[in-house]
Amino acid sequence: MNTLYHVSEADFQRVLSMELPAIEKTRIFATLARINTLYMIAKAGSGHIGSSFSSMDIFSWLHLNVLQDEDTFFSSKGHDAPGLYAVLIGKGKLEYNNIHKLRRLHGLPGHPDIGTPCMETNTGSLGMGISKAKGMIRANRLDDKQGRVYVLTGDGELQEGQFWESLPGAVNGKFDEITVIIDHNKIQSDTWVSDVSDLGDLEAKLTSYGWHVQRCDGNNYEELNTAFSVAKEVKGRPQIIIADTIKGCGVSFMEATAMSSQQEFYGFHSGAPSPEDYESAAQELIEKANDLLAKAGQPMLGIETVERETPQAQKGNIQKLIPAYEQALNEQGLRRKDIVVLDADLMIDCGLLSFRNNYPERFVECGIAEQDMVSQAGALALKGKLPIAHSFACFLAPRANEQIFNNASEKTKCIYVGSLAGVLPSGPGHSHQMVRDISALGGIPGLTLIEPSCEAEVAMAVEYAIEKNPNSSYIRLVSIPYEIPFTLPKNYVLTEGQGVVLTEGDDAVLFSYGPVLLSEACKAAQVLRNTHKFGLKVINLPWLNKIDGDWLKTTIGTITRVFTLDNHLLDGGQGERIGSTLSEEGSSAKIEFTRLGLKDIPECGRNDEVLAYHGLDAAGIMKSVLG
Amino acid sequence: MNTLYHVSEADFQRVLSMELPAIEKTRIFATLARINTLYMIAKAGSGHIGSSFSSMDIFSWLHLNVLQDEDTFFSSKGHDAPGLYAVLIGKGKLEYNNIHKLRRLHGLPGHPDIGTPCMETNTGSLGMGISKAKGMIRANRLDDKQGRVYVLTGDGELQEGQFWESLPGAVNGKFDEITVIIDHNKIQSDTWVSDVSDLGDLEAKLTSYGWHVQRCDGNNYEELNTAFSVAKEVKGRPQIIIADTIKGCGVSFMEATAMSSQQEFYGFHSGAPSPEDYESAAQELIEKANDLLAKAGQPMLGIETVERETPQAQKGNIQKLIPAYEQALNEQGLRRKDIVVLDADLMIDCGLLSFRNNYPERFVECGIAEQDMVSQAGALALKGKLPIAHSFACFLAPRANEQIFNNASEKTKCIYVGSLAGVLPSGPGHSHQMVRDISALGGIPGLTLIEPSCEAEVAMAVEYAIEKNPNSSYIRLVSIPYEIPFTLPKNYVLTEGQGVVLTEGDDAVLFSYGPVLLSEACKAAQVLRNTHKFGLKVINLPWLNKIDGDWLKTTIGTITRVFTLDNHLLDGGQGERIGSTLSEEGSSAKIEFTRLGLKDIPECGRNDEVLAYHGLDAAGIMKSVLG
Repeated sequence: MNTLYHVSEADFQRVLSMELPAIEKTRIFATLARINTLYMIAKAGSGHIGSSFSSMDIFSWLHLNVLQDEDTFFSSKGHDAPGLYAVLIGKGKLEYNNIHKLRRLHGLPGHPDIGTPCMETNTGSLGMGISKAKGMIRANRLDDKQGRVYVLTGDGELQEGQFWESLPGAVNGKFDEITVIIDHNKIQSDTWVSDVSDLGDLEAKLTSYGWHVQRCDGNNYEELNTAFSVAKEVKGRPQIIIADTIKGCGVSFMEATAMSSQQEFYGFHSGAPSPEDYESAAQELIEKANDLLAKAGQPMLGIETVERETPQAQKGNIQKLIPAYEQALNEQGLRRKDIVVLDADLMIDCGLLSFRNNYPERFVECGIAEQDMVSQAGALALKGKLPIAHSFACFLAPRANEQIFNNASEKTKCIYVGSLAGVLPSGPGHSHQMVRDISALGGIPGLTLIEPSCEAEVAMAVEYAIEKNPNSSYIRLVSIPYEIPFTLPKNYVLTEGQGVVLTEGDDAVLFSYGPVLLSEACKAAQVLRNTHKFGLKVINLPWLNKIDGDWLKTTIGTITRVFTLDNHLLDGGQGERIGSTLSEEGSSAKIEFTRLGLKDIPECGRNDEVLAYHGLDAAGIMKSVLG
Repeated sequence: MNTLYHVSEADFQRVLSMELPAIEKTRIFATLARINTLYMIAKAGSGHIGSSFSSMDIFSWLHLNVLQDEDTFFSSKGHDAPGLYAVLIGKGKLEYNNIHKLRRLHGLPGHPDIGTPCMETNTGSLGMGISKAKGMIRANRLDDKQGRVYVLTGDGELQEGQFWESLPGAVNGKFDEITVIIDHNKIQSDTWVSDVSDLGDLEAKLTSYGWHVQRCDGNNYEELNTAFSVAKEVKGRPQIIIADTIKGCGVSFMEATAMSSQQEFYGFHSGAPSPEDYESAAQELIEKANDLLAKAGQPMLGIETVERETPQAQKGNIQKLIPAYEQALNEQGLRRKDIVVLDADLMIDCGLLSFRNNYPERFVECGIAEQDMVSQAGALALKGKLPIAHSFACFLAPRANEQIFNNASEKTKCIYVGSLAGVLPSGPGHSHQMVRDISALGGIPGLTLIEPSCEAEVAMAVEYAIEKNPNSSYIRLVSIPYEIPFTLPKNYVLTEGQGVVLTEGDDAVLFSYGPVLLSEACKAAQVLRNTHKFGLKVINLPWLNKIDGDWLKTTIGTITRVFTLDNHLLDGGQGERIGSTLSEEGSSAKIEFTRLGLKDIPECGRNDEVLAYHGLDAAGIMKSVLG
């Protein structure tokens, strides 16, 4: 079960040079690319199989038979990147060696980034694709350049307002150079699109916008061939191809059509397959590839193997904030009948299943529609409910930024919970690493930002937001389980603007928050104490935009070296607020103040390597503290 | 020409108590309400006549004949507030005395705020209406409460993605309690909706979403009556009434249908009418009202009069940053052929007419679609163009927040220009007073925020953004003309992170930016010098998120009292960044550091009274400086 399989560069070259009808060749190519997609995701330990596989026949057909040199193709949904990488590697457009580097530092990012060859634009935050295609065509036209733009979107992505916002301009501009393909695999992050927020009669909708609309089987090359040929001939109108696909297409048990009627959630949206599932899927694909090759009178694949690296098991005190949040929310739901929970298609990732199962009438699934969700939350608050709106921090804070402010301007009480916050996990890349939400939301009057450091503090933060804070709160949650070397004092209670000492020390004091960086700081403190006789006082300050100046001054006391450590960009983070508060408090001793945190957009990669790269692991912190 | 006319409370009561058929009574009522709408806008000196008048028959019909106690009505477009206020005052739902307080401190805000009786939710930032209606209905249903929700939207508003994002959920939820009325007056902020971003076949579009759709003449009571009656009977589906209206309806020469074919821009969208136009319009409406009353066998109106307050003329060195920007942009457009200008329906307000007229092929009108605009801009940059995207700061920074970050993640160069920035003008209210954009955008890597203080500095900022800054810039512009008592030194050049001394002084130093607060600070400095022998050194620091620490330290020198003055909320403003930099620089002397700026959401009102209320006028600054 520890062997991973990938198709060699030579085999791809062999297939590409075969004298075969386009459809047969593409079928073989796509099967090989599926093997490598699976390999990349298994090796990386995460990635989106379902969406990569539903799109694979579209990617392959486009790259083998449609795209000309002057054309541009990109995926707006972005999480199908492993599939697209596999196709580009297979075609020799990306260096073969990249196959081993999915979601690794300076390798292939979890979502598209233009730093990677052939990636035309950064995507991963949904709904921007058609807008970008329009901009590209405008530039082409100004430069008298030829070239079509092909954009692949998801179907869940169609819940984002920007998708619909972008449609009319393409018609008014007569942008017949744009062809949009909707990978209509019927399943979004959590479950069926029709259950989350039914798209209705998609053909009628898109036609009513004035686009040329076709519908075809997106896993059938004959139909794709016809659809792309027709689209190319359309004059004066942009075109959309609704490609009906099967999520997970190509591996029998990964296909959404294989789900039992009892099964609510699709199992292969994100994350790595289990070793057993990987082995079965790989063998099925290899067998299929060899069958296809045999039919074409060609030798079998010379499949290459790599031994799986078993990730170091986390041990000790592993804190899982999302399950802790799920439990706290569920308990509050029992107590407070006015709580209404809203979700934007991340029910499982945000820990909302228990609440939904127990209080279905107070659970609102909004789909991938953060603006709509937050404005609904505001109206619920106006009518006396206590709304709690959820998404990943990277989508909630910026996409619904104006709506959160609008609610704040009504001075009602709303709670926002942004998970997947911070630099880790770093595999998905910068579209998902939310490191600027303190900045984006910190200036909203009446909104308190709080980030718990451990499971116990999650419950306290939820209690605070629901019971103690008369105003609105934003709870910032780290999603990955993390081993923490600290414990909160038994008598610890949350006090607005104040923190708690995790390690004692007199040589320097460091303020931080959240499980990841507090753990790294505590580890640094231990080494500093043991090997450098240097006392670093580490403080957990969960208040991101509220600093109690008196407490700060007292806590620093006579220590003259002060550090802050942000799981956030330095600009607009907690450190800046602490620094400013220090100036206002006018400490009596001369203080040396240093802010640690991210200086630029974070890298994609394995968690440990990205933390180290940015100097935010224990070693990096130690180095910074010692100067 | 200095007399203003309004209909008395008694006349409204008389009309309401008449025994007349509903349609006749509503027609008289609406005519009276139009007189008062015009009065309120003329008295306030600003407001939206066109949209108030196109909606007036809908407002009046709803309030006189449709709405039940348990129902909720609000306008999502919000800028028709004067019309709605006039109706509510006429019906006695708002105290009559409010008629004199439009856009005055603690009066009737320029856009709806729930602090005003009968205002159900805060609107003015477009596209949120249906989302809010859904939230309200959800709360009603949970509480087993009856009640329908009526939402009025604009037609330009339909360009916002959130409108479309919000539609499917209402169908999936079978929200037949929701009736949306589209005030389809065909003209948005600048010009015809069809020219800005054609809505296409609106009935087909809305029908394709599964909504029940009707179309009627929205200035015809018979048709409105039928439409609302039909809507109320629809079961299991939300309803939309496309109400074809005439912008400015009720005053012959204000009606959009009266525009000549040569006229590109409608003249009565926002702002007060000229005294001549006011007089003609008022007389026409009064005459019409008296005719209607006479036909009903009723005595004439006992019209009340008020003398117009002539606003104090600004004198001295009046700086107009928008025309200066227009000129600079136009000049750069000639020089740089790669510049592409994008607009979101604020072509005139943002100063884009010259560029558009001279370089129409490089001008992109996106409509009220900020997300779409910014993503288009990003794609233009990817293809080698230099995009400059425009809107009011209040819409650009938060609505397209994620898209601006996405562009930044591609490390291309884009320029964003947010006008109407800051606390003034304060008449439109908090939906338009952008005082949190430094916070919302300041944390975006590679984005430099700059705010010029005068016309000369506008040109420098544009030059900097286009020629000197290799990365992206956000130019923050105050839109109102302002009399400035300072001049920049002749040899002044913009230097990143550094500012320039406007007034000398040794007792305290104050850092600020932009024409409004720098002027107030300089006036304060003069009084302090003359009457208190107190030397306040006022520094113009146009860099909002980039502070040169060495320069800061040198500039402060031996001065121990340091102030910052933000045309922004204290949270996340320039002051916080200066404060933090001070801590990092570790000044040798003990410094007393104080941040001045907004502590909460700004009030609506006349510019002078709002500045004074927040302690940001010269007197307030002086008081703060003296402690």
